[in-house]
Amino acid sequence: MPLNPSDLLNCLFEAAVEAVVPSRCVPKYLPAPPKGRTIILGAGKASAAMAAAVEKHWDGALSGLIVTRYGHAVPTTRIEVVEAGHPVPDAAGMEAAQRILAFAHEAEADDLVLCLISGGGSALLSLPPKGLTLDDKQTINRALLKSGATIAEMNCVRKHLSAVKGGRLALAAAPAQVVSLLISDVPGDDPAIIASGPTVADPSTSEEACHILKKYKISIPTNVEEHLRSNLAETPKPNASAFHQVQNILVATPQEALTAAAEVARENGITPIILGDDIEGESSDIALMHASIARQIAKYHHPATPPCVLISGGETTVTVKGNGRGGRNTEFLLGLGIALNGYPGIHAIACDTDGIDGSEDNAGAILTSNTLVRAEALGLNARAFLDANDAYSFFQALGDLVVPGPTHTNVNDFRAILIM
Amino acid sequence: MPLNPSDLLNCLFEAAVEAVVPSRCVPKYLPAPPKGRTIILGAGKASAAMAAAVEKHWDGALSGLIVTRYGHAVPTTRIEVVEAGHPVPDAAGMEAAQRILAFAHEAEADDLVLCLISGGGSALLSLPPKGLTLDDKQTINRALLKSGATIAEMNCVRKHLSAVKGGRLALAAAPAQVVSLLISDVPGDDPAIIASGPTVADPSTSEEACHILKKYKISIPTNVEEHLRSNLAETPKPNASAFHQVQNILVATPQEALTAAAEVARENGITPIILGDDIEGESSDIALMHASIARQIAKYHHPATPPCVLISGGETTVTVKGNGRGGRNTEFLLGLGIALNGYPGIHAIACDTDGIDGSEDNAGAILTSNTLVRAEALGLNARAFLDANDAYSFFQALGDLVVPGPTHTNVNDFRAILIM
Repeated sequence: MPLNPSDLLNCLFEAAVEAVVPSRCVPKYLPAPPKGRTIILGAGKASAAMAAAVEKHWDGALSGLIVTRYGHAVPTTRIEVVEAGHPVPDAAGMEAAQRILAFAHEAEADDLVLCLISGGGSALLSLPPKGLTLDDKQTINRALLKSGATIAEMNCVRKHLSAVKGGRLALAAAPAQVVSLLISDVPGDDPAIIASGPTVADPSTSEEACHILKKYKISIPTNVEEHLRSNLAETPKPNASAFHQVQNILVATPQEALTAAAEVARENGITPIILGDDIEGESSDIALMHASIARQIAKYHHPATPPCVLISGGETTVTVKGNGRGGRNTEFLLGLGIALNGYPGIHAIACDTDGIDGSEDNAGAILTSNTLVRAEALGLNARAFLDANDAYSFFQALGDLVVPGPTHTNVNDFRAILIM
Repeated sequence: MPLNPSDLLNCLFEAAVEAVVPSRCVPKYLPAPPKGRTIILGAGKASAAMAAAVEKHWDGALSGLIVTRYGHAVPTTRIEVVEAGHPVPDAAGMEAAQRILAFAHEAEADDLVLCLISGGGSALLSLPPKGLTLDDKQTINRALLKSGATIAEMNCVRKHLSAVKGGRLALAAAPAQVVSLLISDVPGDDPAIIASGPTVADPSTSEEACHILKKYKISIPTNVEEHLRSNLAETPKPNASAFHQVQNILVATPQEALTAAAEVARENGITPIILGDDIEGESSDIALMHASIARQIAKYHHPATPPCVLISGGETTVTVKGNGRGGRNTEFLLGLGIALNGYPGIHAIACDTDGIDGSEDNAGAILTSNTLVRAEALGLNARAFLDANDAYSFFQALGDLVVPGPTHTNVNDFRAILIM
């Protein structure tokens, strides 16, 4: 093999990201130009780069507005890009959402509204309906998260407390043609869930939303109750005529990123095993299971003979108990390192494909079979760092962070474990 | 395929258990008879059945004493079997441990002490050294569990607060020849960890044990401190002459059980993928990852084409938050069912190979792709049962518990997920 383990793992991550960057995945899905105007609207961590890709390949005039996360803007010439708060929505995002809705309302029958949607769009495009405040939405959201409601139930309530989600952006654009290009960062790649589906009709009803709130005994203020009982709350349904003109197209998915990395592994003589594109669960527990699969291969050469690489995507969670710095990918990697305990010949990378692991400046980090030994030589106790949720500091001290900066795309996490 | 999914999954579980039952795995490892007496000593959930297997195949006289868990005894004619408390040690276990040590002390140079050790032996053979009480041991044990100490560190302390663990049983038997037959239920199959290694020399020192207690700021009563500073605390070291006469032999491992199930799958035209024999972590998180791997296969036919079966072992944990009934295997299965949400053609079994999932009467349960639909028809909310840690009641209501009774062996958990 020409590359050392760390270089190879970096290559796999780069290949995964490269396969799903907007400059590569957007152009091939561009629709034919309309008779009328072309209006570009969008939200998400990748959406500014998607807009730049459209500008570069679009034949004819266009204009529009995109909202992306602070630090995720890229230069554009004709489409306006604004930055706003994520994961906590802020006033800049609300203002952008209002202007985006206004642009949509202005579109006419001969116009094309081209929407560029990617992960993060739900927070960036957060706009309460008339009579409600952002505070109302967030209070109910927090109560839902604690209630034990399913994700489908939470989505139902959220879509009925929004001016944009659940197909309302597409509805506002009617009678114009709407084409929505989506980069998926969600399990199952359901367009209705990516950024809460601003261009996807919603079969759930406001009556169901009320029922869910009652079922989980979530108390709501009078203005929210009034809203839910009014016509305003209802989301547009799939049979609404406005949606005859709407197309939602997935232009990039987590699986495509994993497949691209698998291809590079194969080119380097390494057997790739993709475990899943939608792995969820507590980071340190998911790390334990990855460790076990890696050991199975190292010890028993099953289900494949080394050299091989376990590749997985999805989005793990971290239940924060300590005061340290770190995102879910470095936390995963530190848990993996402790579980493998220096197992010879096993190395790994875990990075967020958007380039930012949680709220730090790194995408993730690299773990090698001698990470724990090097840490001990520096007086670092891996277990203590994990208990403090301080994986960022741990890998920073070792010089093993991966820091590419924002990648301007987002198909969630990328993990690769190399078994030599 | 001749069998329906549930029958096939039951067959896989039975094949896994059958491969590691004492009647099958013990006889082939029996040593040659000694010049002197043969003394059988042992502890663990499988140890009574191991004793019965020895009786059946042994040429010549023998006698001895075995301690097993309540309900795990089997009829023997020459070896005495007593039952005691597990996982919480009790007076019956302490008394048995004392008698077992006394038998070992009586052994002479020409004698053979044949030890039959299996999982659970640590609690069943719990005997504090002179000057300490069971209470002292348990208080320190609880403090260790909360301290963040590694498993190696906890084992070091435990072995220095015991009259049996860490090689002391073998030491007591010197100068007799000692052969220890072990059924592994631990990750890595280290004989020093199975039942805390009563016949395995221990390289760690009582000074290290003191250091660990200090490191994690665990306060200890004066009698424990005095014990740790005395000669009594020191475990026998690997170079001790007594250990020239000691052989520790693994007669059954989790991997062997998984491999046997894989073989039966293959005979039925189903591609087996063994994920790991030592998977640890929170049951519901480990379930999420199993679900993701199953979906990857169902959707992308990678890393194998259906029909195939994911097989895994190990020991998950359940952080109990509710008041329900259930062990880690039914909890795993309920989490898996919710994550798969009725995905067509995916079915699963999860059972403890010892036949008892936690403290209930079942080994585990079966999940089919229509489990959630059937539950809903009965008015059962799967998520609510999981939140209440009440998976036993959930599968009981559906009639889907697996209840073989004690299997008289123990290689930890068995899971199989069938993707048709």
